[in-house]
Amino acid sequence: MRSGMELGLVGLGKMGGNMAERLRRGGHTVIGYDRDPGLSDAGSLAELVERLPAPRVVWVMVPAGSPTQATIEQLAELLSPGDLVVDGGNSHYVDDQRHAVELKAKGIGFVDCGVSGGVWGLENGYALMVGGSADDVAKAQPVFDTLKPEGEFGFVHSGEVGAGHFVKMVHNGIEYGMMQSFAEGYELIKASGIVTDVPATFKSWQEGTVIRSWLLDLLNRALADDPDLEHIRGYASDSGEGRWTIQAAVDHAVPLPAITASLFARFASRQDDSPAMKVVAALRNQFGGHAVVKE
Amino acid sequence: MRSGMELGLVGLGKMGGNMAERLRRGGHTVIGYDRDPGLSDAGSLAELVERLPAPRVVWVMVPAGSPTQATIEQLAELLSPGDLVVDGGNSHYVDDQRHAVELKAKGIGFVDCGVSGGVWGLENGYALMVGGSADDVAKAQPVFDTLKPEGEFGFVHSGEVGAGHFVKMVHNGIEYGMMQSFAEGYELIKASGIVTDVPATFKSWQEGTVIRSWLLDLLNRALADDPDLEHIRGYASDSGEGRWTIQAAVDHAVPLPAITASLFARFASRQDDSPAMKVVAALRNQFGGHAVVKE
Amino acid sequence: MRSGMELGLVGLGKMGGNMAERLRRGGHTVIGYDRDPGLSDAGSLAELVERLPAPRVVWVMVPAGSPTQATIEQLAELLSPGDLVVDGGNSHYVDDQRHAVELKAKGIGFVDCGVSGGVWGLENGYALMVGGSADDVAKAQPVFDTLKPEGEFGFVHSGEVGAGHFVKMVHNGIEYGMMQSFAEGYELIKASGIVTDVPATFKSWQEGTVIRSWLLDLLNRALADDPDLEHIRGYASDSGEGRWTIQAAVDHAVPLPAITASLFARFASRQDDSPAMKVVAALRNQFGGHAVVKE
Amino acid sequence: MRSGMELGLVGLGKMGGNMAERLRRGGHTVIGYDRDPGLSDAGSLAELVERLPAPRVVWVMVPAGSPTQATIEQLAELLSPGDLVVDGGNSHYVDDQRHAVELKAKGIGFVDCGVSGGVWGLENGYALMVGGSADDVAKAQPVFDTLKPEGEFGFVHSGEVGAGHFVKMVHNGIEYGMMQSFAEGYELIKASGIVTDVPATFKSWQEGTVIRSWLLDLLNRALADDPDLEHIRGYASDSGEGRWTIQAAVDHAVPLPAITASLFARFASRQDDSPAMKVVAALRNQFGGHAVVKE
Repeated sequence: MRSGMELGLVGLGKMGGNMAERLRRGGHTVIGYDRDPGLSDAGSLAELVERLPAPRVVWVMVPAGSPTQATIEQLAELLSPGDLVVDGGNSHYVDDQRHAVELKAKGIGFVDCGVSGGVWGLENGYALMVGGSADDVAKAQPVFDTLKPEGEFGFVHSGEVGAGHFVKMVHNGIEYGMMQSFAEGYELIKASGIVTDVPATFKSWQEGTVIRSWLLDLLNRALADDPDLEHIRGYASDSGEGRWTIQAAVDHAVPLPAITASLFARFASRQDDSPAMKVVAALRNQFGGHAVVKE
Repeated sequence: MRSGMELGLVGLGKMGGNMAERLRRGGHTVIGYDRDPGLSDAGSLAELVERLPAPRVVWVMVPAGSPTQATIEQLAELLSPGDLVVDGGNSHYVDDQRHAVELKAKGIGFVDCGVSGGVWGLENGYALMVGGSADDVAKAQPVFDTLKPEGEFGFVHSGEVGAGHFVKMVHNGIEYGMMQSFAEGYELIKASGIVTDVPATFKSWQEGTVIRSWLLDLLNRALADDPDLEHIRGYASDSGEGRWTIQAAVDHAVPLPAITASLFARFASRQDDSPAMKVVAALRNQFGGHAVVKE
Repeated sequence: MRSGMELGLVGLGKMGGNMAERLRRGGHTVIGYDRDPGLSDAGSLAELVERLPAPRVVWVMVPAGSPTQATIEQLAELLSPGDLVVDGGNSHYVDDQRHAVELKAKGIGFVDCGVSGGVWGLENGYALMVGGSADDVAKAQPVFDTLKPEGEFGFVHSGEVGAGHFVKMVHNGIEYGMMQSFAEGYELIKASGIVTDVPATFKSWQEGTVIRSWLLDLLNRALADDPDLEHIRGYASDSGEGRWTIQAAVDHAVPLPAITASLFARFASRQDDSPAMKVVAALRNQFGGHAVVKE
Repeated sequence: MRSGMELGLVGLGKMGGNMAERLRRGGHTVIGYDRDPGLSDAGSLAELVERLPAPRVVWVMVPAGSPTQATIEQLAELLSPGDLVVDGGNSHYVDDQRHAVELKAKGIGFVDCGVSGGVWGLENGYALMVGGSADDVAKAQPVFDTLKPEGEFGFVHSGEVGAGHFVKMVHNGIEYGMMQSFAEGYELIKASGIVTDVPATFKSWQEGTVIRSWLLDLLNRALADDPDLEHIRGYASDSGEGRWTIQAAVDHAVPLPAITASLFARFASRQDDSPAMKVVAALRNQFGGHAVVKE
């Protein structure tokens, strides 16, 4: 059995807290820091760094953007050459590349790690996608080995810095497209009027079909609770990763019609009234005398 | 000056009534029939046929589907060999092909005629797209010449029976895509927050731009009346022709992404809540613990 | 253990032959008929019908459209009141509804059965989705029980006649969208240039991710054989079911953007040159003097 | 008649050269500078600035990105408080906002001006969309008045700095959607096989239809030269503005399905083989045993 590591973990929210728990169960010593003193082991980032033996590994699990940026800037001041920062949040891969340069200037290593698994990860393990140099990745390998699911899958070293978050971003883009596919199929079946047992239909698909998948299993859980989804509104948020996927596609001139349609469907789901469709209605009224629906 | 024809016109609604008026102004004698006796010149279709000199031309201007079908079946009984039926409604091109066969069995000719122009056609003329044999088209040419706009454009003999309604259908598909393009641009400009005078922007585009067009002129009329489109809901109907365009594309394996997106945007505009997006929201809740918006 | 039934099976191609085999392994007696005498147990459909004990069950497993139509017409002549026809092919649900009426006029029952499972079904079982009356479905239940996978999933009685093929059609539409989602993600990762091990990335996703699914497993099989997919062209056929899904969506005014994008991507993949994009290139040349690529 | 201004114009390529010509015809004195000494009036930017009377107006007409950036940095050094820079190129609106700040630090004004008109602008005038303060816009108004088309349209002051290029960007997005709409309609008509005279059909649409537009006129010019577009490949480039439109839509959570489809169709038109569709083909082969097309 592998011997446990000692590591710092910054950010002990729902995700970070669960990951700390899985690491401790796996035999590692985790010193946690969070802005909320009720969650935190250390009184400050400085204290967390002090308490870790060198060479240190600090896993950052805070919201992407400014919070991650601020944490990494502080760590660049606090850590020493030979230490390693792992960004396990949902950072943009372009930010990773900048962070790696900033830390490298101080001799500090950097690995970006995309994490999938949501609320199920504590028990089942988290799928991990990492980017960085082979040396840096090796330093955190025992941590990855504990966080990942049992078996041969669930961990990949995808490439240099940024590659981990890039493939996690694309994973989420694929997820958008798959969810939208099930969603469209559901709506069409409901609209057909000829399918009398919709939940049974989806449930039956869990074996023997081409579309069997974890998302289908989850949809069946939702339909078991609420067979007509009557207690839920058709209102879908989106996180940065869906948007970044489209932007990366545009940057690389890659056509991404299904995934983009999925993102746009979410945008539209959050509108009470569509300014675009006001224009269409206004135009129909102008050329054809078609009545408009008044506000 | 051309000498006028005598013709029958079945269907004297807004569109048919205006066309009859333009034909009379152009020197033709129009005997109209409508189910509404207040609009009708003849007491019955049979009377209309009786009053026309042979060889007769009867222009049918009634709603597509069953009403047109019924009218053509009656005319097949009432007319004589050598007579001609022109379907100027919005029939599906596949129906035209069947109607032509049915009428041909009785020696009666058939021409399908797609008509564009809406409420503006009475004054400006109607764009006409016809399908049929050269002989049949020639029989109604004086009528077409009066209905079309002045000048070299606005009339085409596109091909055999069905070709007229087919190209009118595609015209409408293109129209859907153009309207949606303006609509999307409008929404993005509104959302940007940096454009202080949106109506002035669209108005300026009427000259010198790549997108100058009649639809832009109409949008500017609408914005002149209601600069923020605040009195109109983003609710857009669709007629059969947009749907048929997509079906024809699927039949011919032609990718039609922009026009299809335009039709789907109209479908979505009419939904209070989207069953598909309920599924997306339910799935996000299942795997990520994301809160849902309750109904 | 259930006792075996005796049934007729028309169509012994790859799919029908495997199903006959699975049924025989399950203890049923299958009398097969195929146009190819080398595959056929009976010399004719009439002989097949004669050899079955009444009330008979005949499973039709021939291509959708004319072949199925012809087979059902023949069976309408050959079978007796109380017999049952199961259409296990890929028929359009509207055709099912017509077939049921035709057979009912002779007192013969009808069940439509969508079948998923492809080349894997012989071993793993086939997912079955059936439409018909409860009585008719009950008559063939022992057959369904053998064909379906072990366990609680893989069979559903979705509704009246047509519902089985309708939900199988939608299943295939969802499948199109899921495949396209993986395909788009793959292309973006390849185009990024920062992911050094693409097959390892996809392989790692088989556990712990939101997108784990049978299609992902299959993609990993394909990448194991051909890591850069260099021996396969980006040319994708489509079967009727994807097209019918779009047509049903248009009929029911259901927006289906991701699934439709998936179908259109297949259409485009089969074009050597795009007439539409010739127009775009011609227009850019006209207004901007942009050079065109000459044929 | 208005009295002419004296202004500097940097960048005398096809677009800049034509604009200089239109300005001179309109009574202005234009001192041009270009890297190509054969086109340039001044030997250097410094000389151009020296030769202009204060307060100076310098119109920048060089490629977006680094060339514009470099030119504006140089002008920031050379110009004096009270002078004005107009960026008439295709800059991103976010760059405008940065340029305005940089110049303002030196007391120099900035106006961004989106210009439409292509090769037709010299004779017909250019549509101009400007962003900036009212004072700055007023300083260049005589120049705008000469460049714009005759009549009441073709010029708009859309908002603060960035608004001009923003609305020009959206104009181009709308243009993408309109072009794609015509392109899709063309392909469907060609594929139908029932339209015998395609160019005549498009030509007829120039009057009386809902889709009459300058783009349609241009398409008819192209079809007059090459009725089957057989000398042109379906290969369409894209400029930055289409991509920026999508990115702005994603940033503002605005669904833009038709315009995005238009951009993606261009991306796809430039691919010899689609990596995404290799995946689809590989998956079909895996689950259904469908043959693939080998490379």
